[in-house]
Parts: sequence; C-alpha cells; structure tokens
Amino acid sequence: MSKTTLAIIAGVSAAAGSAATAAIYASRSQRKESATPTVSPTATSTLPPPPVPAPLPTPLRKDLLPPVNPTGVFQYGFPGPVNDLRPTLSTTSSFDRRTRNPAWVAEHITPASINANNADRRHSSFVEDETIPEKFRARLHDYFRSGYDRGHQVPAADAKWSQDALDQTFLLTNMCPQVGDGFNRDYWAHLEDFCRRLTNHYPSVRIVTGPLYLPKRDHEDGKWRISYEVIGNPPNVSVPTHFYKVIFAEDGMTGGDVSLGAFVLPNAKIDNEKPLQSFEVPIEAIERASGLEFASKLPVHRRKRLCEQITCSLLVRDYADRQKNLMGTPAPKKLGAPQAQLQRAS
Amino acid sequence: MSKTTLAIIAGVSAAAGSAATAAIYASRSQRKESATPTVSPTATSTLPPPPVPAPLPTPLRKDLLPPVNPTGVFQYGFPGPVNDLRPTLSTTSSFDRRTRNPAWVAEHITPASINANNADRRHSSFVEDETIPEKFRARLHDYFRSGYDRGHQVPAADAKWSQDALDQTFLLTNMCPQVGDGFNRDYWAHLEDFCRRLTNHYPSVRIVTGPLYLPKRDHEDGKWRISYEVIGNPPNVSVPTHFYKVIFAEDGMTGGDVSLGAFVLPNAKIDNEKPLQSFEVPIEAIERASGLEFASKLPVHRRKRLCEQITCSLLVRDYADRQKNLMGTPAPKKLGAPQAQLQRAS
Repeated sequence: MSKTTLAIIAGVSAAAGSAATAAIYASRSQRKESATPTVSPTATSTLPPPPVPAPLPTPLRKDLLPPVNPTGVFQYGFPGPVNDLRPTLSTTSSFDRRTRNPAWVAEHITPASINANNADRRHSSFVEDETIPEKFRARLHDYFRSGYDRGHQVPAADAKWSQDALDQTFLLTNMCPQVGDGFNRDYWAHLEDFCRRLTNHYPSVRIVTGPLYLPKRDHEDGKWRISYEVIGNPPNVSVPTHFYKVIFAEDGMTGGDVSLGAFVLPNAKIDNEKPLQSFEVPIEAIERASGLEFASKLPVHRRKRLCEQITCSLLVRDYADRQKNLMGTPAPKKLGAPQAQLQRAS
Repeated sequence: MSKTTLAIIAGVSAAAGSAATAAIYASRSQRKESATPTVSPTATSTLPPPPVPAPLPTPLRKDLLPPVNPTGVFQYGFPGPVNDLRPTLSTTSSFDRRTRNPAWVAEHITPASINANNADRRHSSFVEDETIPEKFRARLHDYFRSGYDRGHQVPAADAKWSQDALDQTFLLTNMCPQVGDGFNRDYWAHLEDFCRRLTNHYPSVRIVTGPLYLPKRDHEDGKWRISYEVIGNPPNVSVPTHFYKVIFAEDGMTGGDVSLGAFVLPNAKIDNEKPLQSFEVPIEAIERASGLEFASKLPVHRRKRLCEQITCSLLVRDYADRQKNLMGTPAPKKLGAPQAQLQRAS
C-alpha cells in the first residue's frame, strides 16, 4: 500500500514533468533534423548529395523508465470521487456527488443526549450545504413539488440537546428524498424511535444511516435493473429505492461488546403491522449494496446480534404526537415506559 | 479545511473514548443505585424506609463539551467510499465499489509509446483485480453470457510498448460492460483510434475514460429516471448507460496550452456516419453527471478547445484489421497517414 502511495506521489511530482518529457521529444526531433540535412533544390554543389538516412522507427530503450506517466493527469486536479466528509455537532456525513445524497450519515446518542431538551424544531429550517461545490449540491428547489419529503438521515429528534446540534440536522447533506406518508412520517419514524429507545438499555448507541439503490428483477426479460427517479429541474437529486440503518449498541466497556443491528427498508409506504425484524439483514448485505464497510475493525468476538439481545419491535405512535415532543415543551418521559416492547431476549 | 481535518482526527482519537464516555454513565448509574436503596419486602426494620429521591432529569451542563461524538463510529473502521486508486504501467484508475466499475481510468500516450510495438495481445488475458476486496470485485463470470463485452476503458492498443503494460489493461478494474457490435467493436473503437492519432499533432496526450449513468425522461409520467441493467448472478456489475472521454492534448511546453476535448457516447450501437462532434460536450456536463472534476487546477488561459485546434472526426477502419495490428506483427505505419482526417482547423 505504501508502495502504491509512493508511486502516486512520484507520479504527481513527475506530472509537471510532462513538459519535460515533451522537451525530450522536441530535442530528439531537433536531433533528427540535424541528422537529415535538407537539400536545397537550387544547390549548385558538384558533390552528390549526402545519402539521406531512412527514418528509423523509434525503438523504446528497454532499460529506460516507462515512456508514459498515467498519474500525470493529476497535475490538472484529482478527479475524485471526493468524500466531502462533514462533521457537525450531531452528525458526520459523507456526500455522494453523483446522486447528490449522502452516502452515509453517522450519529451518536446516549441516555443524556436523548433526554435533554434544549432546542425547538420551530427555530430550525432546511438549508443547502454551501460547503459542497455548487455543481454537486442538492438544492431546496429540487425537492419543491417533487412529491418527496426532505427525509432526515440523522433524525432531528436525536439532537434536541442543543439548538445548534438540531439546526445542523437540517442541512441537505443530511437529507434524502423520502416517501412521506406511510414511510418518513410513519414506519421510518417508528424505526428512529426504536433507535432512541435503545438508550434505555445501552449507555452509548451509534447509528449509520443512508440510501441504497437496489436492483429489481424485470418480470418480462428476467434481467436485473436498478431504476430510480431523479428530482429537480434539471434533474439533480436521486431518489433512493431503499434506506439502511446500521446500529452499534455499545455496552460501555473498553473493548466491550457491541450489539449490531442492520435494517433495510424500501422507500415506500410500509404497513405498521409489518414486524421490524422482517427488515433485518446481515451487515454484509448493506456493504455489498452500498460499496461501504461498517465494522471492518470490530473483532468478531466483540460482536453480538442486537435482535438477540433485545426485542426488535416498533412502538407505533401518532406522527402529530411525536412532532409535539419536538416543540419546546419538555417531553413527557415516555421513553422509559415502553420497556416491555424492548426487552432483552435473554 | 484543515480545521475540519483536525476535527476528524480529534474525533477518531476520541473514538476509543466512547468506552470512557460510557464509563461516566456507568459510574453515574452506580451513583443512582446507591442513592436509591432497594427495600426488601421482607425487611423487618422498625425504621421507616428512607425517602426515595425522585429521579431527576439529567440536565446537560452547557459549559461541557457536546455529549456525543458522531465521528466515534470510525473506531469500527471508516465506512468509505474508498477510492481504490490503482496505478499500473499503462493506467491509473479509481474503482466504484457500488457499481463494480471504474469511476475513471486515466492514461498517457505519446508518439513513442503509440509507435512502439513490443507486445502481443494474444499473450494477454482478462483478469479479476484481486487487490479489490472480494465483496466489491467485478468477476469474470459476471460478464459470462451477459451479452456485453468486457470493454476496455484504456484501450489495449494504447499499451503496446510493453507486454506488462498491455497485460495491465486487461484487469477488470479497467473494464465496463459495453455493447459489442456497433459500439465497443465499432464507433467506440474509432474514437479510441482518433485519440491515438492525436499523437501525430501533440507530443503528449492524456485521456480519462469512464462510465456514466444518465437519467432519461419517461414519456408516460414526464419524470426523469436513471435505469440500467446489472449483470451477474447474483447481480453484481452495473451496465453504464453512457461512456465519456476527457482528452488533454498537451503542447509540451511547461505551463503551455492544453487542448481539451470531452465526449459522451451512449452505450449502444452508433451509426458510423454520425459525426464525432455531435458527441462533444462541455467538460462540466461530464462533471455534473459523474460527480468528478477533471480540470479544476488547469487555469483558463491555458485551455484550448480541441475541436477548434484540429478536426474532430473519425477514420472508420474494419475491426478485424485493427485487431491484426495488435497481434505481434509490427503495425504498418498507418498512423502517420491519415493526417488529412485530423488537421488543425487553424
């Protein structure tokens, strides 16, 4: 790996040398010219013209360095992709400049952060992330009349511990187009609530959330196709077919157990009766679909399966009720109550 | 930017501290327990039980650091996306782990590298790139019976200057599924030939090639959709809807002029009669579609438009003929001949 890095650095520093390479050709062609004297048709010399050597093909000296330098293009800038890592108080995200959606957004919640209530959603508003270059940015007007919600990846309700933290969840780099009724305002919101209630059992919970673009088999020709809408005019922001959440519920010990849960939900109306566990998947399935890796440094002996540790099920509450809890008035301590819904299985 | 980097580094080094954070909660909950003595129902003490203090909400001390650390998830590994930069003798590429195609492949050609003929395509074979993690790798069997060619992004014919260089163009990280007849074996091949012939005019030419996944307007509902096949069983490698080439033709002077050309072609049969210039696009169009940037560090005063400097048109030759040139026997110096096809316009 360091060999590769070295090669790249060497390549970049050699890049400006393309001109130098060209200079070699320039001087070679000068050499050629001087080795091939031009004979003026009006020459009056009595001597026969010197024999003109046939132009030889230019053999590549095999003991020389490669005659080309593919990394030299970096002199014009690194093409990317660029991660656009964006750490805020409440989120850390990586932006996908092609789809104009985040690739993932990570958060961290604790009993204290969830129980605190120092912020009011009415003071927050959706904003474009101006740290993303203009040509790759998601726009507020892309969502306008698209029929899709600006769907938080890290939920606003997870960042009530400070107004700044809450505001930062409203950046469009934390947003994807989500189906509203039956999904963002319903099943997906219940899943977010499930994650918050995990802090009744774990002192520290980390969640990575993001979009997926999954293939579907065409009934007619049997072929697999990925197909998704792009909203905006001109089309700009991709509408994910699915969303994932990868949950790390930590026991709080150094090198302790981490209970892992991974869920994939379609970006569509979902019946509240559908069990949460029917959306549970192996983490590797999300990794293969997203091109990301979530637990490459977490040793196997520290891993537990979340849904074997607690009961993975939703507590369905009305959307309007939940919104009320975000509006300044201290939330009633509902979070402690529904433990029956979220019991450790063993 | 350095502030962000610092924040991330701080986040990562603090990540292992999640256990430390949790330890704070652990000791707090221990405190709570000791402050809330459990009263045994069978206690026989004559004293009334001490008053149980009502559990207080845990206010967040506003003078303390944020109570959460979203970057702490990096302790389990960085999710990515990872670029998989792969420099070889003849190519430098970045792999897209989600589509299993390269995001871009860069090359560098010169009059000497193109005219040299030290390699035989018959000694090269298509190979999987084992430096890509198994779960993200494109496989030979994904292409098998898919109906698509394993389409070189950097053409084999550009790397005849050494057998190793030629072999390295056969890595699947240099390949995308391409329509064979009418595209990879025809129009696209003529475009590759056009690029090679640029070395008759420029001492150094750099080309970046890659796939695109472009949206199309649905006639029925007027919505824009990106839709593409995924080959393999299970489905693994995305079939791009289009391909791009960004060309940097250098004049060989330090800080000299760079003639830029940018072309986008559909991954479909294209009539040879169609003019190459009908596929010319502004570089920014490719940047917006791919999420990449190609000339961010190239000052405007050094840029020329390639198709204003030379005539951008194809020289249609038979596929079988071209293949012959790759088969050991020294190529007839056809490359010098068709200069009439590729004249500087001014």
